[in-house]
Amino acid sequence: MSKTENLAQHLEKLHINNMYKNDFYWTWDKTDDELDAIFTVADALRDLRERNISTRIFDSGLGISIFRDNSTRTRFSFASACNLLGLDIKDLDEKTSQIAHGETVRETANMVSFMADVVGIRDDMFIEEGHKYQKTFMDALDEGYEKGILEQRPTLVNLQCDVDHPTQSMADLLHVIHEMGGVENLKGKKIAMTWAYSPSYGKPLSVPQGIIGLFTRFGMDVVLAHPEGYEVMPEVEEIAKKNAEESGGSFTKVNSMEEAFKDADIVYPKSWAPFKAMEKRTELYRAGDKAGIDALEKELLAQNAGHKDWSCTEDMMKLTKDGQALYMHCLPADISGLSCKEGEVDNSVFDRYIEPLYKEASFKPYIIAAMIFLSKVKDPVAALRDLEKRGGKRKEF
Amino acid sequence: MSKTENLAQHLEKLHINNMYKNDFYWTWDKTDDELDAIFTVADALRDLRERNISTRIFDSGLGISIFRDNSTRTRFSFASACNLLGLDIKDLDEKTSQIAHGETVRETANMVSFMADVVGIRDDMFIEEGHKYQKTFMDALDEGYEKGILEQRPTLVNLQCDVDHPTQSMADLLHVIHEMGGVENLKGKKIAMTWAYSPSYGKPLSVPQGIIGLFTRFGMDVVLAHPEGYEVMPEVEEIAKKNAEESGGSFTKVNSMEEAFKDADIVYPKSWAPFKAMEKRTELYRAGDKAGIDALEKELLAQNAGHKDWSCTEDMMKLTKDGQALYMHCLPADISGLSCKEGEVDNSVFDRYIEPLYKEASFKPYIIAAMIFLSKVKDPVAALRDLEKRGGKRKEF
Amino acid sequence: MSKTENLAQHLEKLHINNMYKNDFYWTWDKTDDELDAIFTVADALRDLRERNISTRIFDSGLGISIFRDNSTRTRFSFASACNLLGLDIKDLDEKTSQIAHGETVRETANMVSFMADVVGIRDDMFIEEGHKYQKTFMDALDEGYEKGILEQRPTLVNLQCDVDHPTQSMADLLHVIHEMGGVENLKGKKIAMTWAYSPSYGKPLSVPQGIIGLFTRFGMDVVLAHPEGYEVMPEVEEIAKKNAEESGGSFTKVNSMEEAFKDADIVYPKSWAPFKAMEKRTELYRAGDKAGIDALEKELLAQNAGHKDWSCTEDMMKLTKDGQALYMHCLPADISGLSCKEGEVDNSVFDRYIEPLYKEASFKPYIIAAMIFLSKVKDPVAALRDLEKRGGKRKEF
Repeated sequence: MSKTENLAQHLEKLHINNMYKNDFYWTWDKTDDELDAIFTVADALRDLRERNISTRIFDSGLGISIFRDNSTRTRFSFASACNLLGLDIKDLDEKTSQIAHGETVRETANMVSFMADVVGIRDDMFIEEGHKYQKTFMDALDEGYEKGILEQRPTLVNLQCDVDHPTQSMADLLHVIHEMGGVENLKGKKIAMTWAYSPSYGKPLSVPQGIIGLFTRFGMDVVLAHPEGYEVMPEVEEIAKKNAEESGGSFTKVNSMEEAFKDADIVYPKSWAPFKAMEKRTELYRAGDKAGIDALEKELLAQNAGHKDWSCTEDMMKLTKDGQALYMHCLPADISGLSCKEGEVDNSVFDRYIEPLYKEASFKPYIIAAMIFLSKVKDPVAALRDLEKRGGKRKEF
Repeated sequence: MSKTENLAQHLEKLHINNMYKNDFYWTWDKTDDELDAIFTVADALRDLRERNISTRIFDSGLGISIFRDNSTRTRFSFASACNLLGLDIKDLDEKTSQIAHGETVRETANMVSFMADVVGIRDDMFIEEGHKYQKTFMDALDEGYEKGILEQRPTLVNLQCDVDHPTQSMADLLHVIHEMGGVENLKGKKIAMTWAYSPSYGKPLSVPQGIIGLFTRFGMDVVLAHPEGYEVMPEVEEIAKKNAEESGGSFTKVNSMEEAFKDADIVYPKSWAPFKAMEKRTELYRAGDKAGIDALEKELLAQNAGHKDWSCTEDMMKLTKDGQALYMHCLPADISGLSCKEGEVDNSVFDRYIEPLYKEASFKPYIIAAMIFLSKVKDPVAALRDLEKRGGKRKEF
Repeated sequence: MSKTENLAQHLEKLHINNMYKNDFYWTWDKTDDELDAIFTVADALRDLRERNISTRIFDSGLGISIFRDNSTRTRFSFASACNLLGLDIKDLDEKTSQIAHGETVRETANMVSFMADVVGIRDDMFIEEGHKYQKTFMDALDEGYEKGILEQRPTLVNLQCDVDHPTQSMADLLHVIHEMGGVENLKGKKIAMTWAYSPSYGKPLSVPQGIIGLFTRFGMDVVLAHPEGYEVMPEVEEIAKKNAEESGGSFTKVNSMEEAFKDADIVYPKSWAPFKAMEKRTELYRAGDKAGIDALEKELLAQNAGHKDWSCTEDMMKLTKDGQALYMHCLPADISGLSCKEGEVDNSVFDRYIEPLYKEASFKPYIIAAMIFLSKVKDPVAALRDLEKRGGKRKEF
């Protein structure tokens, strides 16, 4: 039996009726079966592509991407996922558009979506803004579709907001599932999601939030570690606690990197900005207080600099389970002695984990494609079987 | 009988032999039958897409877009139209190209068109320049095709020049046809194309010109209203007059918004710059007179500010036929109290018409696709029938 | 027999087993048969396209382009070539990516290539850097592919480095082959690759280097002419010498444009920067010595200005074989009295050769497509025959 057929049989058993024509904002909106379905379809699409079988389900159509922050890997992952399914990509570049004229989100949403099947949005810079933008955008598309303005209602893929970064955390988790030899082996494993020092400022909180909001669902011991003052959003901590209780795992908060690393199976050391500072920054931006923003930046860089010992060094790695924990990062990392003087991780550690790190990243296009597939295809089990049976070649000759 | 078959039968009766391999500069270059054909094919393509039937007529090929001014909706409409027919889109971004080196239009035209089936150009900033640029570009492609440099002669779609904005006016008209229940119901209807106050400066004249140059062909009473000093190009006024005479409608010019709105079935209040000022601006740019340009801008903003009463308020709307005229705009509008303090239209008026406004915009991709289709397909009647009969799915599963 | 079948029969006789899954850095890496194969496939793809036969060999897949310098014609040529074969194009824009964060080439290479079949790179600004960047990039992809991070190993097409500009020189040569009526007619023909005056500064050396490194392989008399101080890379001169010996042609260096033009069959007058100055500039950039760079620029512009007599004037053209040499240029040229006051060529000369110049450029998309085709298709002879036999229409109706 082929791998894809195997995966189709697994998919058949899941309750996923709610996924068709639905959006993806946050992992905690989704049931366990729905997350399972995404992993399953991602693996199937990868299997088909590895066997040079076309997974084109669109003859034409557009994937719209809106990046309100810089991006390389998510940008290319989204483009790859769209291409894999037959969609063309069209970036909305707010600089060359008339959006500067002050048009509303509602209007923009409709104007770019006449032939869009998917919209991918990254808006992670401002606490309390990113998710709101995505929600406003999609509500406008609901309205546009209902009123016959749009021929189809595009699906949202959240490419990172202020709250969650689901394409990242899902790719991370699928990587862990593959590394551990199956989702059933996650139970009881310890993962340390820890803050790490970076010479830069204001990195989004959505990665640590995404990790604790997702990994707690699989019976793992999830430890969130950071210096005092680097708290994440309390709402997401609540979700992590509840998840851990339900899944039979645990969610712990500590203020010591050493404690988090101790006997960890997985470590995820990464810088982020303090939640409260980001709230303050959002207010300063709203008020247009340039001097206040500059002052805040200086203050935060000084605060960061007080925690240079929060770094994933070789010594720190020795504390982990057999000194061999799986090192993870969403990339790009601030690598001490390579991309900066002092950063999140020693070059020797990073370099030893290059292969798993890049593999981790390689799941993202398939996770995105699976999200689109499950939202667009009414009967995904039949569709996977059809694609395999039909056996169209991705590359001829 | 399907809607598409119905439309194909109508198309069969029209005299449109001239459209194959032809460009689209201005609506007044085209016969009534040719305009009818565009509306007909636009409706047919929309019908097919709504029924998930592929309208791909290209297996590969490029649509080149050149935006010498900002754009969102026209940019995405062009991209959508190309995608609908199977063409990839490639933007010519003059900033990252070698065009800054001073190459000629003739050279650029050929260099970007080796595999181009369509070229869409927006060049609306300077009076006496936009159309000239498009014409020079297309003449160069004629030459390139004749001499065997290009395998195919790409078609031009004018995405807005200094004279006309045909994809806008045609989408506007198709919207009106649908709202009025058929083109035959346009006769005797009054449309007020009126200037409106905007806090910004130098908006193109091609929208009002496009509207009076097109709507006068359908037996309508077209009223052009603006404060003294905001005249449009006299050549286009002449066309409007001639059209009105031939179609049995009328073309009137007034200097009062109230008069224009009185009993109007349709109102189109929108800001634009005075023709003579735009002529002067073009000269100042040619001369590189920065100080002169700044002085002109100040002068024009002051001139605008003298006409803040030219605004589509609730009171103004009450003057229209039963207080219920169809409000139109090419978007984005300057909305009082939403996108600016005082602008073209009251927020409450704009908001009440959101649905028809977005529908109006939704015709543009299909109008563009129809223009391309009729220029590229030798027997469009047979092609529409074939597409329907073949019934390829746009989205499988 | 069709032209394509004819070309397939020729291709059948060539030894090209090494081309499958291989990259294209420099023409002198390739055997004569391999270059012949590229010309042959380029002609076949053009023949098929002219006959409206689809040459799509990819159902989906991406071509990634990285332009670290401005580009119009190479950018559109690469996009056209990808489109011709069925690949979507995705530009890596380093300004909107996270590359500014300081990530390594190794990481970028893997992150953008998950679904990439081809990577086209232009990096021509700095001597000793361009080729190194391409090599590092492709080595990283080797590693990524071996370790299962990438499903496929993308092919490199060098879109211009500091050493060679193979898509240009190959397009140039295919043009010459067609103009001369066959590759066998090149023997004994004289080509003058000469420096010419330009008011701009620092143009890449890769064009003259590419020309002398390639044209010397066909038994031609290749003359490289430039003022003293404008030497090209000595390694490439060595290659040219060796080529000339083996092919029975000659490679001569002179310091006189007149001498080079004398009785030439072909002239290629074009500005470039002195190799030693470019080495110095690279060092200054590495050291971040802004003042030094400015001083060097001034110095080089002054040096250029001492050689304004190196211009392809009407008088100069009279020196060539029957006054009728084929004039070539990679475009855009600095045209005296058109794009600059004094430049590389008289407007009247340039204008007379517009048709062959644009034809010269028109080969580039096909050369690039042929490079991709031969690297991606295991049995290119069978594939060409299949494409022709299958006869899928590029444009239906």
